[in-house]
Amino acid sequence: MSLLSQIKFNDTGLVPAIAQDAETGRVLMMAWMNAEAVEQTLATGFAHYYSRSRQKQWKKGESSGHIQKVMGMYLDCDGDTILIKIEQTGPACHTNRESCFYRQQQGAEWIIIEEPIR
Amino acid sequence: MSLLSQIKFNDTGLVPAIAQDAETGRVLMMAWMNAEAVEQTLATGFAHYYSRSRQKQWKKGESSGHIQKVMGMYLDCDGDTILIKIEQTGPACHTNRESCFYRQQQGAEWIIIEEPIR
Repeated sequence: MSLLSQIKFNDTGLVPAIAQDAETGRVLMMAWMNAEAVEQTLATGFAHYYSRSRQKQWKKGESSGHIQKVMGMYLDCDGDTILIKIEQTGPACHTNRESCFYRQQQGAEWIIIEEPIR
Repeated sequence: MSLLSQIKFNDTGLVPAIAQDAETGRVLMMAWMNAEAVEQTLATGFAHYYSRSRQKQWKKGESSGHIQKVMGMYLDCDGDTILIKIEQTGPACHTNRESCFYRQQQGAEWIIIEEPIR
């Protein structure tokens, strides 16, 4: 696929993918995709990533139900980072928060600025 | 600094940093920081990154003038990705576009959706 040929995967065959809430604009998470995950994302319309710890491709929300419907996919100037705008079902973060970026720098500390959804 | 100790730098000592326009919410770019770049960013209030190609730490905009004033810095759940909300001077992208993510997937192609600023 010509789409894949313009993506510069790193030396482990991965590219970082930023997931942004299409409606609110909030950055929800960053994960990695291999070529197969990009293809599956395009084929199904739902975000797929590659888990470096589990060493396998996975559909986001396959066990939690917290799926991500892709509204748009973008490639950066260097071709080595993907941005997807998504419609998120449930919290994006495995800690049950809306976003994985729930810690903010304040002075020399990271402060938790968002509690998990109950 | 305890702030740095909670960041999980990768095996080359880098962490990806997503830069988002603090006002519009647009994702402008993704680059890498080493520990020194994080420290310089915090010390100066302006984004510093590490260039993998030039193998050196740099202040964003040091030659172009397209600096990024940091309005907030966030760390994700795994501690391996940083998000900064910034006030961008000029275009963020070296192609003179507002954002590096100026190509959108349409079918099997990446289509340029944004022209350079003159």
